[in-house]
Amino acid sequence: MSDRLIYLPLGGSGEIGMNAYVYGFGPVDNERLILVDIGVAFSDMETSPGVDLIFADIRWLEENKHRLEAVFITHGHEDHIGAVGHYWDRLGVPVYARAFTANLARHKMADRGQPEEMIRTVSAWPETTDAGPFKVGFLPISHSIPESAALVIDTPAGRVIHSGDFKLDETPLVGEAFDPELWAEVSKDGVQALICDSTNVFSPHAGRSEASVGPEIEKLVSQASSMVVATTFASNVARVKTLAQAGERAGRSICLMGRAMRRMIEAAMQTGVLSDFPKVVSPEEAASIPRENLMLLVTGSQGERRAASAQLARGKYNGITLKEGDLFLFSSKTIPGNEKGVFRIINQFSEMGVDVVDDSTGKYHVSGHANRPDLLRLHEIVNPKMVVPNHGEHRHLREHAKLANEAGRASIVAVNGTMLDLSGEQPSIAGYVETGRTYLDGNTQIGAMDGIIRDRIRMALNGHVIVTVLLDEDDEPLGDAWCELMGLLEIGRSQAPLVDVLEADVTQFLGRAKEKTLSNDDKIEGDIRRIVRNSARDEIGKKPEVTVIVSRLS
Amino acid sequence: MSDRLIYLPLGGSGEIGMNAYVYGFGPVDNERLILVDIGVAFSDMETSPGVDLIFADIRWLEENKHRLEAVFITHGHEDHIGAVGHYWDRLGVPVYARAFTANLARHKMADRGQPEEMIRTVSAWPETTDAGPFKVGFLPISHSIPESAALVIDTPAGRVIHSGDFKLDETPLVGEAFDPELWAEVSKDGVQALICDSTNVFSPHAGRSEASVGPEIEKLVSQASSMVVATTFASNVARVKTLAQAGERAGRSICLMGRAMRRMIEAAMQTGVLSDFPKVVSPEEAASIPRENLMLLVTGSQGERRAASAQLARGKYNGITLKEGDLFLFSSKTIPGNEKGVFRIINQFSEMGVDVVDDSTGKYHVSGHANRPDLLRLHEIVNPKMVVPNHGEHRHLREHAKLANEAGRASIVAVNGTMLDLSGEQPSIAGYVETGRTYLDGNTQIGAMDGIIRDRIRMALNGHVIVTVLLDEDDEPLGDAWCELMGLLEIGRSQAPLVDVLEADVTQFLGRAKEKTLSNDDKIEGDIRRIVRNSARDEIGKKPEVTVIVSRLS
Repeated sequence: MSDRLIYLPLGGSGEIGMNAYVYGFGPVDNERLILVDIGVAFSDMETSPGVDLIFADIRWLEENKHRLEAVFITHGHEDHIGAVGHYWDRLGVPVYARAFTANLARHKMADRGQPEEMIRTVSAWPETTDAGPFKVGFLPISHSIPESAALVIDTPAGRVIHSGDFKLDETPLVGEAFDPELWAEVSKDGVQALICDSTNVFSPHAGRSEASVGPEIEKLVSQASSMVVATTFASNVARVKTLAQAGERAGRSICLMGRAMRRMIEAAMQTGVLSDFPKVVSPEEAASIPRENLMLLVTGSQGERRAASAQLARGKYNGITLKEGDLFLFSSKTIPGNEKGVFRIINQFSEMGVDVVDDSTGKYHVSGHANRPDLLRLHEIVNPKMVVPNHGEHRHLREHAKLANEAGRASIVAVNGTMLDLSGEQPSIAGYVETGRTYLDGNTQIGAMDGIIRDRIRMALNGHVIVTVLLDEDDEPLGDAWCELMGLLEIGRSQAPLVDVLEADVTQFLGRAKEKTLSNDDKIEGDIRRIVRNSARDEIGKKPEVTVIVSRLS
Repeated sequence: MSDRLIYLPLGGSGEIGMNAYVYGFGPVDNERLILVDIGVAFSDMETSPGVDLIFADIRWLEENKHRLEAVFITHGHEDHIGAVGHYWDRLGVPVYARAFTANLARHKMADRGQPEEMIRTVSAWPETTDAGPFKVGFLPISHSIPESAALVIDTPAGRVIHSGDFKLDETPLVGEAFDPELWAEVSKDGVQALICDSTNVFSPHAGRSEASVGPEIEKLVSQASSMVVATTFASNVARVKTLAQAGERAGRSICLMGRAMRRMIEAAMQTGVLSDFPKVVSPEEAASIPRENLMLLVTGSQGERRAASAQLARGKYNGITLKEGDLFLFSSKTIPGNEKGVFRIINQFSEMGVDVVDDSTGKYHVSGHANRPDLLRLHEIVNPKMVVPNHGEHRHLREHAKLANEAGRASIVAVNGTMLDLSGEQPSIAGYVETGRTYLDGNTQIGAMDGIIRDRIRMALNGHVIVTVLLDEDDEPLGDAWCELMGLLEIGRSQAPLVDVLEADVTQFLGRAKEKTLSNDDKIEGDIRRIVRNSARDEIGKKPEVTVIVSRLS
């Protein structure tokens, strides 16, 4: 049987977040593998309460790690790099990235006690790295973080280009401009497949350059009369620089707040991608600077509860309190799903009299992703045999595949777990692999389908009743049953305390129960659960979760 | 002391939802009162898990119900009418509304076993209703539901106009057009205060008419080749009519799905506000009609899990399954905060191959609220002494007050619980009343601050450990402690089951505990809670909620 080239998204296709893409080349089911990106997604109260981070489920890859050659990371955003420290020990192979990304990755390894030296710094194309049958180069492309790269993956079955997150920006301010000649040169001998970012496929107009927001930001900052605070998406280095320079020109001292912000700027300076950045002052120094001479650049554009913007919205943070007449700029777009958190902050600022400026005018933010016409333009430059959309929810992937099809290119929707064979003239489905989500909860990893989170959601929706029953050596009830309620109303329809009603009903059941029932814990539990649920429904109109504890003297 | 005119929002100011506004006239603290609107808000997992509906807290009004003359309802949307059946018995006064709104209100009263005859139908201005010192007229204004009305509230201190929800639509298709001459006539002798909808104060361009979407919808429907399904915001009667007529012209049978949709159309027909509506078929009949000849009009534009659109997205509903090539139209805008639910549905449809069209082009939906220039236009027509913004979050109220101030009018931000004196030349704060939210949970009402929901959220975030300890007559432990876990990982850092680790730690504590501790339930509980939380933190990195049950043989 001949060799084949496969592609297998484990995360990031069918959702936005936790990117993890496997490529393989070799004999069927014995391909040598590489992994591209290893990111996280963020939890929410509705689907994953209490969860700290979400990773792609990489069990398939772990089971096949003897076939894994290396990990390549396209850029330093959390949804591409965030799991490297958590997952590295399950994979154990070298991780390749460009200098800025590698700097961020090493800190993530150190944070989790993993060996930093396994992060290997590579230079941009035309340098390449050998990994089994693969030769991988980092082809610069513009995005909202420095040193983003597409991967040029050469295999015996041809060249694959994995776009990574990108936009077509010829004046990105920080990092390399999109270079259409270089991309055309790389693609000129034929590209087997383009695996391509789908995030903005529904945005109909060509994207705008990072350079376009500078003059507007400068105007806004120069007109402000009191303190100016600004936040960006993921501490976007180019935007932070634009903001800081606008502040400096307006005679303001710049103060960076929030761990991620400081880390990002530090990494950019250490690796030389950021220069001409104004001198910054510490929060302690900032507290003594007149507010009209101060600008804070802070984390938290998405309303994250622990980030600097949310803390400033709740009151004093690092010795600084915002007040009437201050200006807060969201130089960012709210990601769908985060609206409530962002509006909560805006309303808190509104109560303080702080003037909030957001992206609604389109003046103070541009997206980091390629819009529909930009996607088409990249398809044309690369001119691949096939386009495989990734980095998107199902609706994005489907629309992107349609777009490619309409231009006469082969395409397919492949969600997480779908293994494609890219060897031929068009992509074909080679199989399915079990995948899903892994939750970081406290400091342990749990499967999304283990039922643990489902139990939490049920307790949150329905409340929790705990019933304790004590039986003696002869299976006779000792005293009355005992109920505890958590998250439930104390008084129900009958105006008696709910706990009393439930205890009476369970005690009555125990008094009537036969020896056959009382000798059987499962039977007791099942019967009591049913009694409590029905009784609660009558009293308060809802059926709680019930835990029954049978204690036996023995 | 002289009489005064007061205004007191109990709900709807500082949030969007659960509208409830009190007006009063008379001697200080002994004013006679009326209530305008009595609506609901909707729960979410983040702040109110398991809650069925949210109402304004009306305890202040209930304590003063001997001073309450009547309730007036401006229009039939849930956030204005939804609590009438739940709250009527706590108020006990007549409820006035126009015919269509009254039809909806009577069903809500019947649903809760309340007397339908307390809903009194009134005609539009110039008819007025006396209520103590007030004379109240329903002045027609356009909105996204028939028979919306502003209230003209005449008092000895002058005329107040309460806008209700509105837009300035001169071609609304169903219901009365906005009539600037009538409004000017009503306002010509001077208006003391305009209490005014703030929802769209951030929308910079004048609003578009309901009539503008018809041609686009007609074009879309006529080009569809398979089944067409459409949903609107709150079963918007005019939009449903436009959609149904487009469907009929394209040779399609119309089927209404979802209880709220059928109720809304039924009420509109019964009260004569809707005519020329195509004949509809039942879901049973629909199932046997070829899909290219069928159009479904369904509930669920906001992604509500139980509504028809979500059920269709999950699979078969009323015998109908969508499939490749069908068209689903969101003739609606997603309310901030509902994005995740709506995108969940869109992705499910995408997986089925259904083509989804939403509002992103702006062609298939117009808002029901007045935009910024429309607000200014109404201010100018009414020309009140003062503008009091309502129906909005703090950011909307503040922006609306600024807008009025900039045009030289007195204004003020008054959030829920702020009592204003409207008697003078400008609004002044007369005091504060305790208010907040009341939750309908199952069939009981609970206070938002009672701690019940807080406990549910904590269980969802942290999991729940239940510890049972059994003590004999001499306060000696009988056997080992017993732990149950809910929503927590089973195996922690030490690789032993977490439940074993916790039980061992608690048992060890019991073995060492002094008589002084063991005789005191509170002390035992406190100590065990601390031990369990610390032990869990060491094992799994998080501190769970802990319930301790001390059983004593006695």
